[in-house]
Amino acid sequence: MVKKAGVLGATGSVGQRFILLLSEHPDFEIQALGASSRSAGRRYEDAVTWKQTSLLPESAKNILVSECSAAAFAGCDIVFSGLDADYAGEIEKQFVEAGLAVVSNAKNYRRNVDVPLIVPIVNPEHVSVVEKKLTDAQAKGEKKPGYIICISNCSTAGLVAPLKPLVEKFGPIDMLTTTTLQAISGAGFSPGIPGIDILDNIVPYISGEEDKMEWETKKILGGFSADGSEFVPLTHEQMKVSAQCNRVAVSDGHTECISLKFANRPPPSLEQVKQCLRDYVCDAAKLGCHSAPKQTIHVLEQADRPQPRLDRDRDAGYGVSVGRIREDPVLDFKMVVLSHNTIIGAAGAGILIAEILLAKKLI
Amino acid sequence: MVKKAGVLGATGSVGQRFILLLSEHPDFEIQALGASSRSAGRRYEDAVTWKQTSLLPESAKNILVSECSAAAFAGCDIVFSGLDADYAGEIEKQFVEAGLAVVSNAKNYRRNVDVPLIVPIVNPEHVSVVEKKLTDAQAKGEKKPGYIICISNCSTAGLVAPLKPLVEKFGPIDMLTTTTLQAISGAGFSPGIPGIDILDNIVPYISGEEDKMEWETKKILGGFSADGSEFVPLTHEQMKVSAQCNRVAVSDGHTECISLKFANRPPPSLEQVKQCLRDYVCDAAKLGCHSAPKQTIHVLEQADRPQPRLDRDRDAGYGVSVGRIREDPVLDFKMVVLSHNTIIGAAGAGILIAEILLAKKLI
Amino acid sequence: MVKKAGVLGATGSVGQRFILLLSEHPDFEIQALGASSRSAGRRYEDAVTWKQTSLLPESAKNILVSECSAAAFAGCDIVFSGLDADYAGEIEKQFVEAGLAVVSNAKNYRRNVDVPLIVPIVNPEHVSVVEKKLTDAQAKGEKKPGYIICISNCSTAGLVAPLKPLVEKFGPIDMLTTTTLQAISGAGFSPGIPGIDILDNIVPYISGEEDKMEWETKKILGGFSADGSEFVPLTHEQMKVSAQCNRVAVSDGHTECISLKFANRPPPSLEQVKQCLRDYVCDAAKLGCHSAPKQTIHVLEQADRPQPRLDRDRDAGYGVSVGRIREDPVLDFKMVVLSHNTIIGAAGAGILIAEILLAKKLI
Amino acid sequence: MVKKAGVLGATGSVGQRFILLLSEHPDFEIQALGASSRSAGRRYEDAVTWKQTSLLPESAKNILVSECSAAAFAGCDIVFSGLDADYAGEIEKQFVEAGLAVVSNAKNYRRNVDVPLIVPIVNPEHVSVVEKKLTDAQAKGEKKPGYIICISNCSTAGLVAPLKPLVEKFGPIDMLTTTTLQAISGAGFSPGIPGIDILDNIVPYISGEEDKMEWETKKILGGFSADGSEFVPLTHEQMKVSAQCNRVAVSDGHTECISLKFANRPPPSLEQVKQCLRDYVCDAAKLGCHSAPKQTIHVLEQADRPQPRLDRDRDAGYGVSVGRIREDPVLDFKMVVLSHNTIIGAAGAGILIAEILLAKKLI
Repeated sequence: MVKKAGVLGATGSVGQRFILLLSEHPDFEIQALGASSRSAGRRYEDAVTWKQTSLLPESAKNILVSECSAAAFAGCDIVFSGLDADYAGEIEKQFVEAGLAVVSNAKNYRRNVDVPLIVPIVNPEHVSVVEKKLTDAQAKGEKKPGYIICISNCSTAGLVAPLKPLVEKFGPIDMLTTTTLQAISGAGFSPGIPGIDILDNIVPYISGEEDKMEWETKKILGGFSADGSEFVPLTHEQMKVSAQCNRVAVSDGHTECISLKFANRPPPSLEQVKQCLRDYVCDAAKLGCHSAPKQTIHVLEQADRPQPRLDRDRDAGYGVSVGRIREDPVLDFKMVVLSHNTIIGAAGAGILIAEILLAKKLI
Repeated sequence: MVKKAGVLGATGSVGQRFILLLSEHPDFEIQALGASSRSAGRRYEDAVTWKQTSLLPESAKNILVSECSAAAFAGCDIVFSGLDADYAGEIEKQFVEAGLAVVSNAKNYRRNVDVPLIVPIVNPEHVSVVEKKLTDAQAKGEKKPGYIICISNCSTAGLVAPLKPLVEKFGPIDMLTTTTLQAISGAGFSPGIPGIDILDNIVPYISGEEDKMEWETKKILGGFSADGSEFVPLTHEQMKVSAQCNRVAVSDGHTECISLKFANRPPPSLEQVKQCLRDYVCDAAKLGCHSAPKQTIHVLEQADRPQPRLDRDRDAGYGVSVGRIREDPVLDFKMVVLSHNTIIGAAGAGILIAEILLAKKLI
Repeated sequence: MVKKAGVLGATGSVGQRFILLLSEHPDFEIQALGASSRSAGRRYEDAVTWKQTSLLPESAKNILVSECSAAAFAGCDIVFSGLDADYAGEIEKQFVEAGLAVVSNAKNYRRNVDVPLIVPIVNPEHVSVVEKKLTDAQAKGEKKPGYIICISNCSTAGLVAPLKPLVEKFGPIDMLTTTTLQAISGAGFSPGIPGIDILDNIVPYISGEEDKMEWETKKILGGFSADGSEFVPLTHEQMKVSAQCNRVAVSDGHTECISLKFANRPPPSLEQVKQCLRDYVCDAAKLGCHSAPKQTIHVLEQADRPQPRLDRDRDAGYGVSVGRIREDPVLDFKMVVLSHNTIIGAAGAGILIAEILLAKKLI
Repeated sequence: MVKKAGVLGATGSVGQRFILLLSEHPDFEIQALGASSRSAGRRYEDAVTWKQTSLLPESAKNILVSECSAAAFAGCDIVFSGLDADYAGEIEKQFVEAGLAVVSNAKNYRRNVDVPLIVPIVNPEHVSVVEKKLTDAQAKGEKKPGYIICISNCSTAGLVAPLKPLVEKFGPIDMLTTTTLQAISGAGFSPGIPGIDILDNIVPYISGEEDKMEWETKKILGGFSADGSEFVPLTHEQMKVSAQCNRVAVSDGHTECISLKFANRPPPSLEQVKQCLRDYVCDAAKLGCHSAPKQTIHVLEQADRPQPRLDRDRDAGYGVSVGRIREDPVLDFKMVVLSHNTIIGAAGAGILIAEILLAKKLI
């Protein structure tokens, strides 16, 4: 049965992409679109400045935009939030209290220990925190509780994709460095990055980004305590992570030059590393999710790949490309990772998370 | 007295910049321009496809281009070579055998132990290899021998600029990683980087570049054996260097995200590192060289700098900008280094090297 | 029944796009791929440097590349030529003499009076020259003759799309000016436009382009003599055309600012012009061709559209977008036209022409 | 004697360029800097987000920013206004009433019949309106009245530069079309043009720009009535002008593809047109103004020039480049004009206007 979906921040950059992905989705249909009071009450087509390369879907044009109140989303099985951090904190809290399931692209609740921070091709098993909450409520005969699941930061998503299978197979990563070359689409478009900042230029700084990458990676690669009762991120002692983030003149697709050292000595061979990445099948694919990539990680052998313009659309943006895997004179291995920042790094991740929730019967 | 200068590869990208810099130089005047036999015999203005943002200097327009034979450059006090590696090997060898002094941008002789590899704001003292050769010949009453001095790779130049004062003050660097975002001007323009490769794209690969950065850094930071008889580059055990090189949509100016660990424990403080870089005065400046930067290293405190478009022209491209100096969770410190690849990283370096030779009375 | 297709110049930029479009096409299957002798005998995957944003189709990987000889294409129902003009003249002639049907993107035969110059959404009726040739041969019991159909220049294709319905409805256009802002993909990629030429730059010149636009337009809008016996392009007296062509930093999608004056006085109203364009249904659509655009011309009302990044993919690149239609203080009307240069302006046009030939039972 | 200058809108994009040009100017020194109340009272260095490629001049760093009140600028001989149109109307009016001389980049007073609209390399003689006002006041023994002189729109400045000498020599231009490819720097930087709008894109629309170009051209090419008593712009009947404006991915330098028809028949020859442009010496140069271009119009003969990156800096941005002059199949001639939008099209024009006022002893 098709599930009813709502979108918060529907006129923004992330909201538009949620709508685009939902409009062609077999499992979801749009039930409610929420935006600021300036837009509320207007037809979506009139309220939005549509800036996608695909046309505004016919099915969304006539939906009346509502305010971001839980009441307006009462009938939704799932709510996707593309809200700015300035508003997400308060609104998402309200929605949870009203018993709604929220998948959020905002950063506000990512650090909360009972909120799963999910990259759907990496750690969908972390939704078990929510699963338990639902089961407990059911056992107690309470009404279904609301919850939030957070989408990771866009640059974190690409980074952890190859790390997950490597850690599973070869044990902990002791040290990790990443230098990113990030696309501008992640910054939205009102106004987003000024043109003068990226024309014949790079900006070697993205506010808050390095910090996010450093701790989100440790949460996503973390796990449950031995007795399963508690979720525990990795500590700095377990995994040292350093990020340097740059904005470059690319529309979509974050490129990252990473370097890593395994804790176990001797480390695996170069060929073992490549084979491990090639063999990785994410759980979302095993669950048969509609948007799950056919090939989770594309290992490229050409010397000059991956490149954002050529490789960002693999598996409709849900696959991650890894190239130039080679030994590193300082740590163990270095490689180049490319991921689609608005798909696996933002709205697309939200959709695939919802598909996972559906497959696990949590919605 | 004004010295007579020749330029090899005069119609190419590097050659054009040599000519531009020489045409306004108080210490040099152009005596000979050499190019392929296709151009030889033509007025320079007719032979060249001039692609600089400054106009072709009047003084160069009517010079007759000659072939790249030592005979045609016989009267030159100094010869600047902008030749492609395919031709530089043979031609530069001939010039040296004919007793000429060559400052070369080609890679061919960089690894030779008796050829100084010079970044003029970093290690001009390494020209002493040449100095000794000249003194020895003079002592023996032999005629002045020819010699080559090599300009470093463009991305190496920016990297070693901050390393030199740090090593002088705080001792050896044990580990160093650098991820570069390199401009396209370094690749010349016939054809150079195809537009389709850098529009909405980055190319995470530059042939041979990473290897060059890794060993050139160790040669430039190397020194003479205890008895002064032999030049010895650093070994991998002394300094581990790892480079990841990317081509981005920037016209001029290489940006590098570097991370380093000192050998000595504890390492210096963040403020000590910054102060050391601010205080650095390169020898070329002490020698009063015309093109030496007033401020060798510009330490920037704004969060989002250096940026190539805004900062590449400091001290006419001879100064290096370093920003975002901060502690690194993996090694000791990380920072962003920006240098002008066609000035301090190529033709400009050649001119400043010649000024140093002049100041040291080697030409 | 699926028709057998060959591709000449298969490793080049246009050839790659033919292969991409054919590999998913219901009516055609690739039978032969031709390239230079350097590539001949190799598997296509090994011979090509694939530079498309979609992956090299599995079905094409193992095809053995042949030389561009008619013999190697003997079994083909249709041959698509992406050859450079340097080779197309001789090779295509040979193919025609061997009785093959060639749809060519090269410029060599475009001016020939018995070669139709076709923009498939504009003047497919001009293939009747070929139709007659085939019927005549059949009537005489001769074997099926070979023929060439030329694809127009990429910038011409976009220009004539709105002109056709306007001329049909409102009579001849007396004067037409167009200033183009052309994408770089049309220039191929070995090397195509150098990056340094389009980064922070435009190049106000494309060799031969203005001349092509000026006369091709008059051929495409021309027609048959009263007795139907002869094809006659428009004369300069009938239609004065002036083009100014620029290369800009856009990957795909040619934008043109056009201005036109009708011969008939008074001219139609602004609303009549818009309605005429909205109402236009190209013959390829009426014939039910697979790739024909659902909407031939998209009339945009937003002030700042069409834009290449947002609008070039309408109808998979087969639709043309026209915006900013307004009265012109000098001629009658001005407007902005956007078309996808590699689809409706090159390889895609070739495929749609072949579909038209198929619908008309000419192959 | 050095004149005292004030700058309104000192922290904005145009204001920063006024300050840069003034800081190295032999005839002016900065006396007062005005900005919004948010900045007032702070040191300029602290108030501004400096975004120029040259460093913030030392001499400007410590100037205390004041509010934009006439009192704070009382001692100024000349005031340069880089105010936004939202504020310029009221503030500039106040300044004039207080007897100050204002050179404004804002559009507010451009249409006023008693306000000269000046492109300093084109129509400095139009300042005679102001000259008369000053003489009249002096004759009457009244105190020196204030006045405004308006800088033209950036794209108008480039357009009229070649028109002026052509009209002077060959008589009126009957029809003129221009299609512009405009740089982004003209749009300022807070936020200016969003990066996503100019990366792999063009925007075929700039609000209000086409209208400005169409009427400003007619005012600048206008003149005084026969009895000299009244300034009269050209009428639409005298000169029909049509502009199509596009924003492209260029940092500085507006390129315009223009086409024109003279009123007189037969028109001049192609060579006469070129010679006329080459020979043009603007009045500012004849007056010996410091910033006047040595060569007002650079006629380029290379097929692919002018190009913004290579040619925008001719004569420090005060010279205009014209290339590809050729006959036009629709009107008489077509050509490509390049001008530096922030120099001759904005702040630089203001400085040169002030130099003209100084040469004419109006300040």
